[in-house]
Amino acid sequence: MELIVEVLNITAGGRRIAILSEETARMLGVHSSDRISITYCERQLIAIANVASHFPKKHIGLYEEISETLGLKTDETVEVHLAELPESLRHVRAKLRGERLGEHDVNTIVKDVLERHLSEVEISAFLTALNIYGLNMGENEALARAMIETGDTLDFGEGPILDKHSIGGIPGDKTSLLVVPIVAAAGFTIPKTSSRAVTSPAGTADRVENLCPVDLGISEIKTVVEKTNGCLVWGGALELAPADDLFIQVEYPLGIDPLLLPSIMSKKKAIGATHVTIDIPTGSGAKIKNMTEAYSLASDFVDLGMRLDLKIQCALTFGEQPIGYAVGPALEAQEALMALMGGGPADLKEKAVSLAGMLFEMVGVERGRDKAAHMLQSGKAEQKLREIIEAQGGNPRVKPDELPVGAYKADVTAEQAGRVLWISTADIASIAKTAGAPRAKGAGVVLKVKLGETAKKNDVLFEICAERSSKLESALELAHRLQPAVLSKKSENQMLLDRVPEKVASDRPFMLER
Amino acid sequence: MELIVEVLNITAGGRRIAILSEETARMLGVHSSDRISITYCERQLIAIANVASHFPKKHIGLYEEISETLGLKTDETVEVHLAELPESLRHVRAKLRGERLGEHDVNTIVKDVLERHLSEVEISAFLTALNIYGLNMGENEALARAMIETGDTLDFGEGPILDKHSIGGIPGDKTSLLVVPIVAAAGFTIPKTSSRAVTSPAGTADRVENLCPVDLGISEIKTVVEKTNGCLVWGGALELAPADDLFIQVEYPLGIDPLLLPSIMSKKKAIGATHVTIDIPTGSGAKIKNMTEAYSLASDFVDLGMRLDLKIQCALTFGEQPIGYAVGPALEAQEALMALMGGGPADLKEKAVSLAGMLFEMVGVERGRDKAAHMLQSGKAEQKLREIIEAQGGNPRVKPDELPVGAYKADVTAEQAGRVLWISTADIASIAKTAGAPRAKGAGVVLKVKLGETAKKNDVLFEICAERSSKLESALELAHRLQPAVLSKKSENQMLLDRVPEKVASDRPFMLER
Repeated sequence: MELIVEVLNITAGGRRIAILSEETARMLGVHSSDRISITYCERQLIAIANVASHFPKKHIGLYEEISETLGLKTDETVEVHLAELPESLRHVRAKLRGERLGEHDVNTIVKDVLERHLSEVEISAFLTALNIYGLNMGENEALARAMIETGDTLDFGEGPILDKHSIGGIPGDKTSLLVVPIVAAAGFTIPKTSSRAVTSPAGTADRVENLCPVDLGISEIKTVVEKTNGCLVWGGALELAPADDLFIQVEYPLGIDPLLLPSIMSKKKAIGATHVTIDIPTGSGAKIKNMTEAYSLASDFVDLGMRLDLKIQCALTFGEQPIGYAVGPALEAQEALMALMGGGPADLKEKAVSLAGMLFEMVGVERGRDKAAHMLQSGKAEQKLREIIEAQGGNPRVKPDELPVGAYKADVTAEQAGRVLWISTADIASIAKTAGAPRAKGAGVVLKVKLGETAKKNDVLFEICAERSSKLESALELAHRLQPAVLSKKSENQMLLDRVPEKVASDRPFMLER
Repeated sequence: MELIVEVLNITAGGRRIAILSEETARMLGVHSSDRISITYCERQLIAIANVASHFPKKHIGLYEEISETLGLKTDETVEVHLAELPESLRHVRAKLRGERLGEHDVNTIVKDVLERHLSEVEISAFLTALNIYGLNMGENEALARAMIETGDTLDFGEGPILDKHSIGGIPGDKTSLLVVPIVAAAGFTIPKTSSRAVTSPAGTADRVENLCPVDLGISEIKTVVEKTNGCLVWGGALELAPADDLFIQVEYPLGIDPLLLPSIMSKKKAIGATHVTIDIPTGSGAKIKNMTEAYSLASDFVDLGMRLDLKIQCALTFGEQPIGYAVGPALEAQEALMALMGGGPADLKEKAVSLAGMLFEMVGVERGRDKAAHMLQSGKAEQKLREIIEAQGGNPRVKPDELPVGAYKADVTAEQAGRVLWISTADIASIAKTAGAPRAKGAGVVLKVKLGETAKKNDVLFEICAERSSKLESALELAHRLQPAVLSKKSENQMLLDRVPEKVASDRPFMLER
């Protein structure tokens, strides 16, 4: 049927959507969400029909995505037909019934997600079904491969190319800021891409941004890595796995994360990594709650690595409290810098040395842990981070106290004396976010005591920093409500860990920082 | 933050969507799909943010749904903030984790679906999770009640108000066209609302539309029912359960139907029914495949009926082949009219008399089946249908052969002699749809043999009717490919029923005709 074009002069967020009146839709035999083919001057394109009640009949409304692709102007005429169900939608429907998908099936889905042939409704149903049924290893592999094949890749030449990744879930985890310079200082290549915070108070890219720009293009990254062996950049704009970026947009409002494995592995493979340590923080408030879950996930990572020709070792790490003391972009950058300069918290340095040591041993270095410790203690890692900062366009002579942090500060003190028995990482994250992190880079939380340490009544448990007084007040109020640290003189006097539902249900942080 | 309005002069299909640039979104701390509150002149509204890469910063793009509600024009200024997660989304996320929802939880979801506070992504995930986990009876009841409370209702005064409903799944099922006049002729009130075809070759509304208008408003329906005791109208525009209409839009592309029970029951309750027979066609190609499934669903209907104060009896009916011979809107209207006039197929009449008889017995009539048969045989039911046709604005003297059917016809003949062992109802539906049904009202299939009947080689098995020769050719080609009727001299000589996947996988018809 011939229809008259009405160009809407607005994008549909990348979606290929066309608007039809109810009457025109009925004449075409089209229901809302059906596919239609639009033909103009021998060019054809498949769009998803939205049926609107108040739209002129015999017209078709086209968002910019379509009008630009076909070179159409308002009042031109196009030929429109009901198109067949895309093959990918059949596979999505099969997954809704719990069927397992083969490599070909997954490829058609990923391709159609990228080409916008699948609607958000369909992608949402697909991801929900994956989240409920789980993925088998064949599906994980197929998804990882499809994500790699449809994205850009980086090539740093002869290997080994090392990398480190954390599945996230612990506030204050600035370990990458130490591991990358330790590994690069030893002469190995480690082109580290990281995410920004989505639901957490700081991602690695947010932390590094206090020291130097992180928003580098592919050729800039290559220059930095050639010069310094390493980099610490934001991976979000690199199109390493653009399909995954689209999946994340749908997962985000749902608070689900079914693609953890293929998402991480595809991005490691895309930057050309050959040897990767995956950090799996394990703790009651972390993404992974206990060692059983952690071993199972670790085994899946190793298995998927073998299928993708990627050497993987997983580190199961202590995740019952924040890493170091600082939580929030600038506060964490300060703390990482201090740790490289010889000070800083012991747990952070221990974790960084362990992970770097694992990487060294994976590529044949004996006593890798000692080598990592030497790189850190000798100041070579600090020197290397300053080289990377300079190569990425920052000030290589930056001092920790030059990084601006929030001017509004308040202490949260102990209501009773005792030993710290429990720290809720999710609550610490919520307080830091309420204080303004990650948007306010200088906002966050600084712990003054950690697990096992003792405090007297009225001793400071943690400090809140904010860039605005109203944010500080909100965070302080939340801190008093949540009471994220549990103290007791003796553990047998404090058997109650939490009250449900008296305690406010906080959103799950660290959802999609993978 | 203050933002400058850009009115987009286009609807978002009822959705409350606002567009922000990436930079503005980051300054607000907003991710795509987050809720934002928009305030203008003391009026406030919650919208879902879409983040666009090419949109002017410090501006907010508003679709008509928002600009009209707030009375906004381009270049005016609004105050915009990140809003909290709606409570309904927490319940949707709980369902994704497999938790059971309470009445309050379901109410917030249905309310937010109607007020467009939940996005299509979220509704899709919710329905997918319901489809996979199933609903318990409490959830079915809560959904039915929420759908009723948020929709319009009809009141026909003192009961009993009778109704009949089929869950669908069998082509050619024009039983309602007989049951309604049989029941109304006996003096009982039966205000029947029906659906149009969504995925099937004909819905009851499509069939009746060949005889008279079906698109009546609530007051017109009341007039028709007061005059004749019955009606046969399209329920789609009545807003009896508007939440369900929105759910159907999302279910349709996914091919899932998790809300069968609350959807049907809410609409029966909304028209004020007190006694309902629910037809559950059972057969290997129907929605319900076997008697075990059918008894389970029937028991759920009865249970839900008791919870909603609605007397329900379910009829488990033979669903291994089409009802009667005709499939397609006009062909079926012809056949139903013939059956009321004394001719017509025996199975159709038997089914209609059985269902009407059940209704009679439910309201205390003894030997209800005999009464129903009498209404049919005496011509009183025919007379009643003609009264209803007239009251709805059709020609009461219409004759079956005056209903126009497709001029392009072709026979499909037997390739071998034998007895009809099996008829694929799904294949018959696909052929009728390929011939043009339901859009082309005169298109469809007319069976010449049914189960257990014998045919000689080259005898006609069925005839295809179409309104255009190209449609006839496509349907004929499909018929030869699908071979929907299996014949054999002896059943032991024909053990192969189907070949998978050589046979084309046809779409599941009768998905949302509930």
